[in-house]
Amino acid sequence: MSLLTVGSVAFDKIETPFGKTDKIIGGAATYISLTASYFTKKNNLVGIVGADFPAEMIEIFRNHGVNTDGLEIDQNGKTFFWSGKYHNDMNSRDTLDTQLNVLDGYEPKLPEQYQDSEFLMLGNMVPAVQHATLNKFNKRPKFVMLDTMNLWMDIAMDDLKAVVSEIDCLTINDSEARQLSGDYSLRKAAKTIMAMGPKTLVIKKGEHGALLFQGDKIFFCPALPLEDVFDPTGAGDCFAGGFIGHLAKTDDLSFSNLKRAMIYGSAMASFCVEKFGTERMLNLSEKEISDRVMEFVQLASFEIS
Amino acid sequence: MSLLTVGSVAFDKIETPFGKTDKIIGGAATYISLTASYFTKKNNLVGIVGADFPAEMIEIFRNHGVNTDGLEIDQNGKTFFWSGKYHNDMNSRDTLDTQLNVLDGYEPKLPEQYQDSEFLMLGNMVPAVQHATLNKFNKRPKFVMLDTMNLWMDIAMDDLKAVVSEIDCLTINDSEARQLSGDYSLRKAAKTIMAMGPKTLVIKKGEHGALLFQGDKIFFCPALPLEDVFDPTGAGDCFAGGFIGHLAKTDDLSFSNLKRAMIYGSAMASFCVEKFGTERMLNLSEKEISDRVMEFVQLASFEIS
Repeated sequence: MSLLTVGSVAFDKIETPFGKTDKIIGGAATYISLTASYFTKKNNLVGIVGADFPAEMIEIFRNHGVNTDGLEIDQNGKTFFWSGKYHNDMNSRDTLDTQLNVLDGYEPKLPEQYQDSEFLMLGNMVPAVQHATLNKFNKRPKFVMLDTMNLWMDIAMDDLKAVVSEIDCLTINDSEARQLSGDYSLRKAAKTIMAMGPKTLVIKKGEHGALLFQGDKIFFCPALPLEDVFDPTGAGDCFAGGFIGHLAKTDDLSFSNLKRAMIYGSAMASFCVEKFGTERMLNLSEKEISDRVMEFVQLASFEIS
Repeated sequence: MSLLTVGSVAFDKIETPFGKTDKIIGGAATYISLTASYFTKKNNLVGIVGADFPAEMIEIFRNHGVNTDGLEIDQNGKTFFWSGKYHNDMNSRDTLDTQLNVLDGYEPKLPEQYQDSEFLMLGNMVPAVQHATLNKFNKRPKFVMLDTMNLWMDIAMDDLKAVVSEIDCLTINDSEARQLSGDYSLRKAAKTIMAMGPKTLVIKKGEHGALLFQGDKIFFCPALPLEDVFDPTGAGDCFAGGFIGHLAKTDDLSFSNLKRAMIYGSAMASFCVEKFGTERMLNLSEKEISDRVMEFVQLASFEIS
């Protein structure tokens, strides 16, 4: 099945306890598309960059089978830029700089040939823009997943709730789930959020794994304990890319396949943090991915006799 | 197999966002023994209380099959007292009051009939006292597990390392693992700690589950997401009680059985937090326990096709 990812394509400048980068390629849609490319070959990308965006990166997308017809290049603008510094625990970070640039006032355009995308991933963006993008489809995609962040809960909660009411699956982190629901207990938060619309909810807990909720069903997917985490940037997006990539590949929305999607998402996120930026996501082999998934099987499996 | 638990038997006074208690029964050995009683009927207890300790509680121990011959009653002393207040996130707490009372200068005595205990659980206590207790055995127990806390790392690190070098399994929480090892990565911390002596290590992460390490093997056991956590006091001890109780019951130290022990430990901890103090641990049925374990199976199981 084909997957359309809509979201930011960006420059990041990152500092972690392990070092710092110059301006490198980042952005939610970048991480999601690259990751999903290991699962489905029908990958469409909608986003915008400025004249400063390197042609080599667009070539990399294409080499990964990502269709970039929907990647607008604003010759008069500069690419969205984010700079951040992670604390020693790698779980919290300070934003040092954000320059919206071409994302300011951006309204995604949906190329005609993307209309039949069966899976839609709305990466973290202004909720009203996510909503407008969803409304551009003549026929609603089969599975719509959305990622968001605390900022939009602070400044655009009504818009966020409006788009959340129309999606199939929401993916947010634990503190965002608490903020969106007003419930501290994640089990209660999940009920409250699913009552807002999405039948399926993924609550990401970073190094502590992720929870999948659907109706009364819950699945817990661990994170792989790693020797070193170099850079957590993009881990959540790689999770989303692995998750929806697996679903698009298999076209199976059963709960047991959603569980597998969680494991693939967590496996892909575990690669992402091993290097700075997108580096680790550029040249993964099938064997590396299946070996990593087997590590999750080893990590999580037990039998009650 | 028989299990000997050594540790504090105490009064606690607890405040959580859900309410506060008067003086109630607490203490590591109390939680461990009560929990283990659901697994093995050969439960021995070594500890000390004062004249103020209620005879009814000793009766409750006996009714749970806990042999209290090793529970010293100091008629001239008062029972150890701890008072604490949990923050809203339930993951952190402030100690409001600690009165050592009879624990001050206490040296555990090992009744002759306890000498053949095959499984030994050294609950959190002064490390030198834990060590002295282990040395009282004519024949080393088959499996020795020890729990400790950050306080002893601050004020008695050498003593702690001395006893840790002689045990089979250490159970500590994630921040303590980082403090003991000096490593932030739990995977690195585990290697460092296992090099100190224990072949097996359990790192508890509270609501985020627990990790089991042995050599190169790792197992992750989730915590059950609960609607409400009323009182986390004793959860770690109930985990330890379920863990070592299952091992003593089955007398099987294979890694696959250690994994099961993790699940039983986590299940017992999930009961503990549902009520204040030991309340929930007093009257559990076999069915409640097996149903709860099945919730863990549901929560954690997946198949990679």
